[in-house]
Amino acid sequence: MRVVVPFGGREPKTRLASFFDADERRDFAVSMLRDVLDAVRAAGGDPAVVADAPVSVGAPVTVDDRPLTAVVSDELDGLGGDPVAVVMADLALATPAALSRLFETDGDVVAAPGLGGGTNALVVRDPEFSVDYHGASILDHRRIARDAGCSFAEVDSMRLAVDVDEPSDLVEVLVHGEGRAREWLVDAGVRLERGTGRVEAVRARR
Amino acid sequence: MRVVVPFGGREPKTRLASFFDADERRDFAVSMLRDVLDAVRAAGGDPAVVADAPVSVGAPVTVDDRPLTAVVSDELDGLGGDPVAVVMADLALATPAALSRLFETDGDVVAAPGLGGGTNALVVRDPEFSVDYHGASILDHRRIARDAGCSFAEVDSMRLAVDVDEPSDLVEVLVHGEGRAREWLVDAGVRLERGTGRVEAVRARR
Repeated sequence: MRVVVPFGGREPKTRLASFFDADERRDFAVSMLRDVLDAVRAAGGDPAVVADAPVSVGAPVTVDDRPLTAVVSDELDGLGGDPVAVVMADLALATPAALSRLFETDGDVVAAPGLGGGTNALVVRDPEFSVDYHGASILDHRRIARDAGCSFAEVDSMRLAVDVDEPSDLVEVLVHGEGRAREWLVDAGVRLERGTGRVEAVRARR
Repeated sequence: MRVVVPFGGREPKTRLASFFDADERRDFAVSMLRDVLDAVRAAGGDPAVVADAPVSVGAPVTVDDRPLTAVVSDELDGLGGDPVAVVMADLALATPAALSRLFETDGDVVAAPGLGGGTNALVVRDPEFSVDYHGASILDHRRIARDAGCSFAEVDSMRLAVDVDEPSDLVEVLVHGEGRAREWLVDAGVRLERGTGRVEAVRARR
């Protein structure tokens, strides 16, 4: 299956600015992208990156700096009867098993919800479906599928629900990550701090 | 399978104090507990509540105000060869399907990780295993299982990963909830607000 991986590489992960400078944030974002591409391939997918700036990651890259919804809409328009998947580039916990469940779930549209109402991954098998990534997109995608007469299934996966945007998300990468992104964090001096309340990620001064 | 559901009913959900007063927080916590009990029963489990104060929810309740680790340890000590599950009372997104996956996964110990390093649900089939719910408990539980020679499996479920503690968790209940807890929030005037950034839960003034 063709798997489109949109990647915002120009100014990635600004909400991690308290942890990392701009160059580091880009490095970390690329390490997550590489993990996602590996997991997609191991799950039998054929990944294609669409990025807003050139990036070299050992997979075909198309540069397109339009908003996410426009980029993905064009991919769906080119469907021609073949299914296509869309998997976000910051799913640092994604495993081949989680993506296989996504790819193998029946439905005209299959979604993996993200925390906070997002849509972290999609499989689209019906060209009548369209995307809208603004706001609580999982609600919009449910509605769009219903209005288009498409069946809609959701995959229940924590590994696909966590997209890494904020410092609290780094905890999940440290606890559950298995790839480059976790290694990158450890090398950067990020570690868990277990105080009295919730576990936090902290960065050691060097 | 016996399914222990620990419930802190004396001062529940203090981190939701910006949304609800103490009586409301208790009402909301009980509505989540009832949803969890329904889902456990629908998944074929036999629920037993252990609470730090009396609560009436249509299931057997034992009152025990010791810390969580002590309460669950006693349950495991009484195992006698039968498997036992431990499912937190604030898993407002739990569905019969998600719990069935937990109950049916092979392993001496099967865990559903919670966001932030927690352990939201467990199945224990080997009396050599013990629990430690302090801090990043999923890391401790992996280690304890390894040290005890128990096989350890993790269930990848967003519905079991979200425990409802903080205002941002209310977004998940509004978007994905299917039971009393969601209904309770809607009746209390809590709704999604889609601004420019992340979707938030807000409470309407009445």
